[in-house]
Amino acid sequence: MSASPYKQLEQEFKRLHAFRGALSLLRWDAAVMMPRGSADVRGEQLAALETEHHALLTSPRISRLLDRAQANTQGLEDWQIANLREMRRQRDHAIATPVSLVSRLTKATSRAEAHWLTARKEGKFELFAPHLEEVVRLVRDKAALLGQALNLAPYDALVDEFTPGVTTADIDSMFKGLSRRLPALIREVIALQEPYQLLPLAGKFATGKQRALVTEILKAVGFPFDRGRIDESEHPFTEGVPGDIRVTTRFDPNDVFSGLLGALHETGHAMYDLGLPQEWRDQPVGRDRGMALEESQSLLIEMIVCRSRAFVQYLKPLLEKHFGVTGPEWEHENIYRNLTRVRRSLIRVDADEVTYPLHIMLRYELEKQLLTGELAVNDLPAAWNASMEQRLGIRPANDTEGCLQDIHWAVGSFGYFPSYALGAVVAAQLYEGLRRDVPNLDEQIARGEFTGLFSWLRTNVHAMGAKVTVNELMKSATGKPLTAASFVRYVENKYLENTLSSAAA
Amino acid sequence: MSASPYKQLEQEFKRLHAFRGALSLLRWDAAVMMPRGSADVRGEQLAALETEHHALLTSPRISRLLDRAQANTQGLEDWQIANLREMRRQRDHAIATPVSLVSRLTKATSRAEAHWLTARKEGKFELFAPHLEEVVRLVRDKAALLGQALNLAPYDALVDEFTPGVTTADIDSMFKGLSRRLPALIREVIALQEPYQLLPLAGKFATGKQRALVTEILKAVGFPFDRGRIDESEHPFTEGVPGDIRVTTRFDPNDVFSGLLGALHETGHAMYDLGLPQEWRDQPVGRDRGMALEESQSLLIEMIVCRSRAFVQYLKPLLEKHFGVTGPEWEHENIYRNLTRVRRSLIRVDADEVTYPLHIMLRYELEKQLLTGELAVNDLPAAWNASMEQRLGIRPANDTEGCLQDIHWAVGSFGYFPSYALGAVVAAQLYEGLRRDVPNLDEQIARGEFTGLFSWLRTNVHAMGAKVTVNELMKSATGKPLTAASFVRYVENKYLENTLSSAAA
Repeated sequence: MSASPYKQLEQEFKRLHAFRGALSLLRWDAAVMMPRGSADVRGEQLAALETEHHALLTSPRISRLLDRAQANTQGLEDWQIANLREMRRQRDHAIATPVSLVSRLTKATSRAEAHWLTARKEGKFELFAPHLEEVVRLVRDKAALLGQALNLAPYDALVDEFTPGVTTADIDSMFKGLSRRLPALIREVIALQEPYQLLPLAGKFATGKQRALVTEILKAVGFPFDRGRIDESEHPFTEGVPGDIRVTTRFDPNDVFSGLLGALHETGHAMYDLGLPQEWRDQPVGRDRGMALEESQSLLIEMIVCRSRAFVQYLKPLLEKHFGVTGPEWEHENIYRNLTRVRRSLIRVDADEVTYPLHIMLRYELEKQLLTGELAVNDLPAAWNASMEQRLGIRPANDTEGCLQDIHWAVGSFGYFPSYALGAVVAAQLYEGLRRDVPNLDEQIARGEFTGLFSWLRTNVHAMGAKVTVNELMKSATGKPLTAASFVRYVENKYLENTLSSAAA
Repeated sequence: MSASPYKQLEQEFKRLHAFRGALSLLRWDAAVMMPRGSADVRGEQLAALETEHHALLTSPRISRLLDRAQANTQGLEDWQIANLREMRRQRDHAIATPVSLVSRLTKATSRAEAHWLTARKEGKFELFAPHLEEVVRLVRDKAALLGQALNLAPYDALVDEFTPGVTTADIDSMFKGLSRRLPALIREVIALQEPYQLLPLAGKFATGKQRALVTEILKAVGFPFDRGRIDESEHPFTEGVPGDIRVTTRFDPNDVFSGLLGALHETGHAMYDLGLPQEWRDQPVGRDRGMALEESQSLLIEMIVCRSRAFVQYLKPLLEKHFGVTGPEWEHENIYRNLTRVRRSLIRVDADEVTYPLHIMLRYELEKQLLTGELAVNDLPAAWNASMEQRLGIRPANDTEGCLQDIHWAVGSFGYFPSYALGAVVAAQLYEGLRRDVPNLDEQIARGEFTGLFSWLRTNVHAMGAKVTVNELMKSATGKPLTAASFVRYVENKYLENTLSSAAA
C-alpha cells in the first residue's frame, strides 16, 4: 500500500526543509567565511537552489497532494491538520507571485540595494530614488497578486508573509494604544533620568576578551555549542536550522556592550528555533510563528532580561573578570543606567526600547502610503523628516540619518517593520506571564541561571511551533489576547519606578 | 526563437554545477565548521541535494536534449563538442546505476564504514568482514551494470568513474614497467641512504606558527586568498569550486612538515581547479580530467617540487624565521634527507614516493580479485599479508596496519586506488616536460618563485579541462603518451644520483 497523500506531503516538505537548511548554510558561509571574491559563485548556487525550492513547492504534485489530503483528514492528529494548513500557506505564498515577477524583483532589489549603499554613503537620496520607485512598483504588483490569492488587502498580504494572521487592523489598534501613552511617557522618563550623572563606560575592550565573555554568558544561557556556533559578521544575524544553529555578532573594541547585546539578541532567536518541537522539526508546523514572535524572543532577552538590575548583578563580576574594570562607572547603578538610558534619537537600531515603537510607526505609515501611491518616492525625505519632528521632536540633518538608514525598502521588505514593534509588545506581555509564573525570576537571573526563563518560554512559546496563531498563543501563554497594555505597564514600571526610586536614593 | 538544444543543455549543466558547488560547500562545512552534534541534520541536507542532482541529471529532458544536440552538431565549436561528450558521460554514469542500487549501496557503505572504524580500532577484521562482503556484492552489481552501459569490462567501468578513458590494460602495462625496476631500485636506494646519519627534526612546533609558515608559502605559491581559504580538519582535503576553493590541512605540533606538506598537496589540487578554463567553468568540459590528473597535480607539488634541494633552499630560512630553529639538524642536507628518506613501511599514506606504487599494486590486484570472486573476503587478511611480504619484504603484525588501514573499500571506492599510482607516473612525466621547457626551474623554486612552474602547468594541463583524454593531454604536454619510463628515470636521478654525490661529499 502506498503512503497516504498526507504522508507523501510530509516527505515532500521534509525535502524542502533540507533545501532551506542548505540555503541557510550557504548564506551563513557567505557572511562569515566566504572569501571576498567568491560572491558571484555563491550567487549562482543560491539562485539555483532557490529556483529548485520554488519549483518543488509550487509543483502540480504538491497541489494534487494538498487537495487529496484536505479532502479526507480523518485519522489525522491536530498537529497534522495544522501542518496541512501551514503547507498550504507556504504553497499559496509561493505560487501567488509569478516567476517572472520574482525574477524582476530580484534584479530590481539587487540594483536598488547597490544604489542605496552609495546614496547612504554620499547622503544623496536622489541616487536611490529611481531604483526605489521601481521596487515600489513591483512590490505593489506583488501585494495585489498576493492579496487576491490570500483574500487579504494588499498590504495585509505582505504583512502575512512575515507575521501570519496579523492584519493592519491589529497593528493599528496596537499602535493606537501605544500612541496614547508613549509621547507623554517619553517626556516623563527623560525628565526623571536627566538629574542622574551618567558616567560613560569608556575603555578599550579587546575582541578576544569580548569573545570570552560572550562565550561564558552564552554557556550560562544554555546556547548548545554542540549543535550551534557563534561567529562574527558585519551585522549580527541568525541562520541555520534547529540542530545546527549559527548566530553571529560584531565586536566594537570601543564599546563593551554592543557585541554582547548583539550576541544575546541573536541567541534569543536561536533559543526559539532550538525549542521548536523536535518531532515536527522538518515540517511547516514545526517552524516559528513568524517574525513578530521571533523578534519577541530576541527582544525579551536583549531588552528586557539583559537590561535589568538582576542581570547587571550577574554581569558586573564578569566584566571585572574579563576586562579588569573597576571604579565608580563600573558600579551596578551606573552600568544599569547606561543600559536603560532613554533618548530621542534618529537611528532606529540604536534606539532604546521606549522610543523604539515611534520609529516603527513612522515607517509603517510611510510604507503604506508609498504602496498606495499616496506618497511619491521623491517626497519621501520631506515626509520622513516631518514625521520624525512630529513624533520625536528631532529632525535629521541629512537623509543618511533619515530615510536612507534602513536597508528594508531597498530589498523590497515592505510589511516587515511592524513585526519589530509587535515583537516588543509580545515580549512585554510574555514577560508579564513569565513573572507571574516564575516569581523568583530576578534572583535566578542575578545568579546567572536562565533555566526558569527558558523552560517557561519553551513550554508556552517555543513548543507551539506554528500550530496556533499569534493571538491563540498569547491567550494560552498569558491568559489575554495580544494587547499594548502590557508593554505600557512594563515601560512605566521599569522607567518611572526605577528612576523615581533611585532619584530618591 | 528558443535556444538550441545544445544551449539548453549548457543551461541545465550550469544549474547542476551550482548544485555540485553547494554540495561541496556543505561537505566542507561538515568537516571544518559544523558543530559535532549536527551530523544528522547535515546528512539530510546532503541526501536531499544529491537526490535532486541525480534526478535532474537523469531526467528525460536531459536525455532528449542530448539526443537532439548530437543529431546536429553543426556550428558547434570543438570545446562544445567535447562538452557534449562529457555531458553524456556524466549522464551515462548516473543513469546506469538504478536508484534502488544506489540507495542500497549508500546504506551498506555507511554500515560498513562504521564497522570498519571499530574493526580497525580493535584490530578485528572479522567485525568488518560481513559488511565488506555486502559492499563487494553490491559494487559487483554496479560494475556489471556500468560496464554494460558504457561497453566496458566491469572493473574498467569502475576505473572510468574516477579516471575516464583509462583501462586495466593501461594500468597493467604501467605497473609492469614499474615492477620491472622498482624492487631492485628500492634495494639500491636503501643501501645508499643507509650510511647517512640522519638527524631527526625534533621539537615542538606551535600550531599558530605552522599556520603562519603555511600562509607565507601558499602566498608565494599563488594560492588566491581572495577566492579561497585554508583551514584545518581531521584529514586534509580540497572542496569548493574554482572561484571559491577550500583546502584544509592538519597540524601536528611534533612534526614540522606534515601540516605544510598536507597543505601543499591540497594546494596542488586547488591550483589545478583554479587553472581550469574560466569560460567553461560551469560546464562538464571545464572540469578536471579525473583523479589520476588531480593526483598528479598534488603529487607534483608535494613529492617532486617540495622534496627537492631547490625547495629546501627556499624553506630553510623560513623555518628559522617561524620556529627559530638552528643547529646541525636544520642544515640543508639534513632537511633534504629527512624529506626523501626511503623505507619499506606498512602504511600507504606514510610511504615515500619510491615504495608508494607497490602499496597501490597490492591493492589493485586484491580489489580485482575480490570483485571477480577469485578472492573471498574472509581470505583478504592472509592475501594482504602475503602480498606485503612478497612485494616489500615486511609483514603487518595485525590487520590494523594491514588490510584495515584504508577507508576506500568500506565506502565502496573500488577502482580508485590505481589513480594514486597513475598520478605519480603522470606527475613524473609532466615534470620531465616542465624541466625541458623551464630550464631555470630550480633557481626559481630556490628563490620561492612558482610562476614558471604554474604557468607551464596552466598552459599544458589545467587549461585543457576535460576536453581531451589523459593520453592526448600527455602527448601534447610532453610529446609522449603516458609511460612509466619517466617515473623510473625521475626516481633513479633523484635517489641514486643524489645519494651517490653526497655520499662522496
